[in-house]
Amino acid sequence: MKSNSPENINLPLDEKKRSLSVVKIGGNVIENTSELDKFLVHFSKIKGPKILVHGGGKLATQLASKLGVESQLVNGRRITDGKSIDIITMVYGGLTNKTIVAKLQAKNCNAIGLSGADGNAIQAHKRPVKEIDYGFVGDIDGVNTAFVASLLQIGLTPVFCALSHDGQGRILNTNADTIASEIAIGMGDTFETTLYYCFEKKGVLLDIKDENSVVTHINSEKYKELLAQEIIADGMLPKLENCYHALHHNVHKVCLGDIEMIQEDAQLFTTIIL
Amino acid sequence: MKSNSPENINLPLDEKKRSLSVVKIGGNVIENTSELDKFLVHFSKIKGPKILVHGGGKLATQLASKLGVESQLVNGRRITDGKSIDIITMVYGGLTNKTIVAKLQAKNCNAIGLSGADGNAIQAHKRPVKEIDYGFVGDIDGVNTAFVASLLQIGLTPVFCALSHDGQGRILNTNADTIASEIAIGMGDTFETTLYYCFEKKGVLLDIKDENSVVTHINSEKYKELLAQEIIADGMLPKLENCYHALHHNVHKVCLGDIEMIQEDAQLFTTIIL
Repeated sequence: MKSNSPENINLPLDEKKRSLSVVKIGGNVIENTSELDKFLVHFSKIKGPKILVHGGGKLATQLASKLGVESQLVNGRRITDGKSIDIITMVYGGLTNKTIVAKLQAKNCNAIGLSGADGNAIQAHKRPVKEIDYGFVGDIDGVNTAFVASLLQIGLTPVFCALSHDGQGRILNTNADTIASEIAIGMGDTFETTLYYCFEKKGVLLDIKDENSVVTHINSEKYKELLAQEIIADGMLPKLENCYHALHHNVHKVCLGDIEMIQEDAQLFTTIIL
Repeated sequence: MKSNSPENINLPLDEKKRSLSVVKIGGNVIENTSELDKFLVHFSKIKGPKILVHGGGKLATQLASKLGVESQLVNGRRITDGKSIDIITMVYGGLTNKTIVAKLQAKNCNAIGLSGADGNAIQAHKRPVKEIDYGFVGDIDGVNTAFVASLLQIGLTPVFCALSHDGQGRILNTNADTIASEIAIGMGDTFETTLYYCFEKKGVLLDIKDENSVVTHINSEKYKELLAQEIIADGMLPKLENCYHALHHNVHKVCLGDIEMIQEDAQLFTTIIL
């Protein structure tokens, strides 16, 4: 039992919460079997409660093309029609999710694969039709944090695919980055949550051509500087906005980097705090 | 609180266990949207803890054919090669399972979809190659009853597809009837388990052409009689053998019938006991 020594009293309340790691991997890791296996070895070694969120990758597009289902893009954004949502449910919720779960089980990580419909984990509504009808795309209304916490409580590691549901019997396609941040935000009430975004770079780079030019620490002040210097630009802009959204909503810290980042002795990645 | 009155003392111990319903539906229900919806309305109304196990149906065969993957049959039995297990994982574990879960959620049934890899629920080994190599087909070694019980405990309704895993990272194809009976057998230690097999008939029929000639009650003695009279023959032989295997291993009773059977006021179906 902790005593109320001055040291402890001075600790922010958050420090007393149990740690939780929420890790998101993208399609580029999933598509490459040896990269995926390497990632899962690292992931299974993360100490304490953890959650994995995986994107889809090109497999769904490939399957759609084989089945003669055209991928519709409007202004560069994918439209999820009736046939597409079925294909996505097969690939994300079936093949990719169960492959990852079976591989984690072989690494003594007691994984359980979930869509947002399972245990009513991720409630969403179909994106309203304005200029564009995105089809069966879901915008998140809430995360069933009590359910997720109860799975963690019995020693399970939830593995989420990028599917939500509307509570009316419909599966919806939802961005995996958003699912990861919403879960991290939801769990932030009871856990000291770190959100890891694994992508193809080692972090935020000062020089896009130099993989070793990683900015290892970013706080709000540094963030403003990097924005002003246009070092954070293009695709990194929405990524960092997403990170700060999470940090402003109960997430302890966000880490950006490649799959090596989640190793205990990892050093070269970007840690982002408020 | 129950008193130790003579009536209670005379009750067999099993009577004091909590009831559990394990319901298996076949492909013919899954393929037909209106039949499936009707079934799920009945299923969601079952009182007390319950588990659903679903077969595959023709969707996997149709998808395989569209993708140009030939369904190999040897002596009338399907061979699950590498491409087939991926298709089965997509259809059974993805589309079918998540569709059922989302529909049950819409009916206020807190469903959670599972393969045998999730939570290490169903451990199996690849069927050894003798005369025939069945490919990625799993023979069950055990059911993780503690995991299943913990899900029931937090008010969830597990929905199992016909997939097991080998603990080495491999998903395996396992017969849904067998998954249902092994789950019912495993849960029999802690629950008074009733196993429901929903199929296309109203039960065991005295006259195969008369849907109303249902034998409503079968015990071991009646079973022998029906066998001697060859009323139980052909496809019903292994079905009934399977039922008695379950009854001899801790399952309280087995019911055979169509989807109406699981309604509270259902009368025309077959109840099988020891």
